[in-house]
Amino acid sequence: MKRVVVLGSTGSIGVNTLKVVEDHPDEFQVVGLAAGSRVEDLAAQVRICGPRAVAIRDASRVEEFRRLASSDGLKICAGDEGVTELAAMDGVDIVVVAITGAAALAPTLAAIQRGRTIGLANKETLVMAGELVMRTAEAHKAPIIPIDSEHSAIFQCLHGHSRQEIRRILLTTSGGPLKDVPAEKFGNLSKGQIMAHPRWKMGPKITVDSATMMNKGLEVIEARWFFGIPVKQVEVLVHPEAIVHSMVEFVDGSILAQLGVTDMRIPIQYAMTYPRRLRTSLPPLDLVQLKQLTFEAPNPAKFPCLRLGYEAVQAGGTVPAVLNAANEACVQSFLEDGLAFTQIPTLIEKVMRAHRTIAQPTLKEILHADDWAHAQVQSHLNHQGAIR
Amino acid sequence: MKRVVVLGSTGSIGVNTLKVVEDHPDEFQVVGLAAGSRVEDLAAQVRICGPRAVAIRDASRVEEFRRLASSDGLKICAGDEGVTELAAMDGVDIVVVAITGAAALAPTLAAIQRGRTIGLANKETLVMAGELVMRTAEAHKAPIIPIDSEHSAIFQCLHGHSRQEIRRILLTTSGGPLKDVPAEKFGNLSKGQIMAHPRWKMGPKITVDSATMMNKGLEVIEARWFFGIPVKQVEVLVHPEAIVHSMVEFVDGSILAQLGVTDMRIPIQYAMTYPRRLRTSLPPLDLVQLKQLTFEAPNPAKFPCLRLGYEAVQAGGTVPAVLNAANEACVQSFLEDGLAFTQIPTLIEKVMRAHRTIAQPTLKEILHADDWAHAQVQSHLNHQGAIR
Repeated sequence: MKRVVVLGSTGSIGVNTLKVVEDHPDEFQVVGLAAGSRVEDLAAQVRICGPRAVAIRDASRVEEFRRLASSDGLKICAGDEGVTELAAMDGVDIVVVAITGAAALAPTLAAIQRGRTIGLANKETLVMAGELVMRTAEAHKAPIIPIDSEHSAIFQCLHGHSRQEIRRILLTTSGGPLKDVPAEKFGNLSKGQIMAHPRWKMGPKITVDSATMMNKGLEVIEARWFFGIPVKQVEVLVHPEAIVHSMVEFVDGSILAQLGVTDMRIPIQYAMTYPRRLRTSLPPLDLVQLKQLTFEAPNPAKFPCLRLGYEAVQAGGTVPAVLNAANEACVQSFLEDGLAFTQIPTLIEKVMRAHRTIAQPTLKEILHADDWAHAQVQSHLNHQGAIR
Repeated sequence: MKRVVVLGSTGSIGVNTLKVVEDHPDEFQVVGLAAGSRVEDLAAQVRICGPRAVAIRDASRVEEFRRLASSDGLKICAGDEGVTELAAMDGVDIVVVAITGAAALAPTLAAIQRGRTIGLANKETLVMAGELVMRTAEAHKAPIIPIDSEHSAIFQCLHGHSRQEIRRILLTTSGGPLKDVPAEKFGNLSKGQIMAHPRWKMGPKITVDSATMMNKGLEVIEARWFFGIPVKQVEVLVHPEAIVHSMVEFVDGSILAQLGVTDMRIPIQYAMTYPRRLRTSLPPLDLVQLKQLTFEAPNPAKFPCLRLGYEAVQAGGTVPAVLNAANEACVQSFLEDGLAFTQIPTLIEKVMRAHRTIAQPTLKEILHADDWAHAQVQSHLNHQGAIR
């Protein structure tokens, strides 16, 4: 019986994690849940799962939670510190990190320092602090297992192999909503057109990242750290059907690919049961019905954010954190009708170029670089006024 | 340094095996070579590889070989018994079985009884004697590693997993030369049309097996034994590009697929280096240039040989050996303009139905069933005259 803590239990990955637990009651026991502010959902989860402790990041909602949940014997932690305390609590085997944003860094590092197995769904952890996180994980023998579909696919293909056997990682992407739109038309697109992602309903931030292909730029950085290989061995491959979730080419020329229906329960469950596989009730992938899988080369000239991802991880130190923060700030401004879509990569690159890199940064230095980049974007926007 | 014996060293798989050895001189040493009758080629291989022993199946060629090869200190074995003696010789780590036909059975079993790692390229070993061979391999702890591309693909996908984790094996096939020809036109096709395989140059027997899809029927039987799963978990999937060499769907719904350029050195080398992977100089697979991979359902009504493969392994005992021998005899008759193409499955099925199954047969009983089925086909052909 593995004892599980879920950070971000009321979000989509968190809810699916609890479904996996529910499907395998003999395998998993939920001992801790952390949520942001959705205390009603958290209270309902507590009633079903019966954890020993919860954390509520928004400390102002704690009293409301107390009223909703029968909290006899339940430990309640509050604020960012509370989430970190929950992540580091005693008697835990796996910590599923499903919090979004930089808020995941401190609790994830705390769990790593206790040698927990980490099921990592949060992107920022390795984008912002890949070197620090992997070094800490190695020191504390804490396995870090990816949960997003691409890195889980690579992790599955690599099972039983060493990183020395990797020739290339082929990170697949659907190509995003603008794959077939010529770059010269990007300036004429409405926000609505850009936000209409062809395949999945996603939040606004990730939809814009998909349109700029920054999502792949960030995943390239993650892949470099997850699998400990030089970033030049990570290649992006456009695969519109999004059935092949990624591939690994080995030094002998053989390629392993992971395919599947699009359901996050597969990578979540694999992270939780690794190295075993347990049953799911998901329908089989029907390749005959799909008929074909297609592949195209990416176009980095059209999507500069892809190139920026490679450049940031090659520069190292605090640069990937700056890339990530500048992107966050630019996307937010775009969503608020400040920055034009085509200006997103331009402004990110400007901020990256202005940054003085700190090599092997501490968590504090990383978070400072994050703040600095946010402020830089703001300052540019303030000075230039509305760019569009 | 692994000490290698190659049975069938002058054939295509044998020659490629020696290329793998040549590419990795620090990894492998050839200690034994067995050939059928191509003694010039064998003598040349002996000069390059310097084995301790050779076997020549065609005993009448031994004197010629002695004249060609400088045989100082080289042990020379002759005939079928000589090949078996070589397979069981002392000081061997891997025996690559690249002999075609039933002749591989006795030497392979002899190598297994000595606990050797078997790199198995011969189809008949598991088709005719799967139960006996796998039982013997288990008793002697002899790993049997597939070399043909489909089973090697499955073996690669299964690395690090247990058979209990398999939901389905998806055995791919190009579909053969008659994939898009309507069944009602099969009767009108000339031998030349049937023999024009779209993708590979192959020998006449395997080209006909590809046209009838008996090659997949036989591979279904092999897969059942290689991977120790019920045959109903083995599914055939038509994939005309033949880039995905096969796939495994696990119980969690995740699929791993092995892809690669079509070069036998990949599966040969993997069998020899397993569980490691070593470099090859093969060009990478270019999925962007390929553009697409397509999939179709097989049509067992159009290709009864596919169904016969499943039926034979489900019946068990000597039935798969009868299927294999009846197919050999029918194909030979077809190639000699005796039997009509459409009569191949009909006559095979007739012989299968007439057979009295022996459960858990010995090698002798298997070889007897093989003889019996050959004779049955001949008898049918003699009684019916020219069926076409």
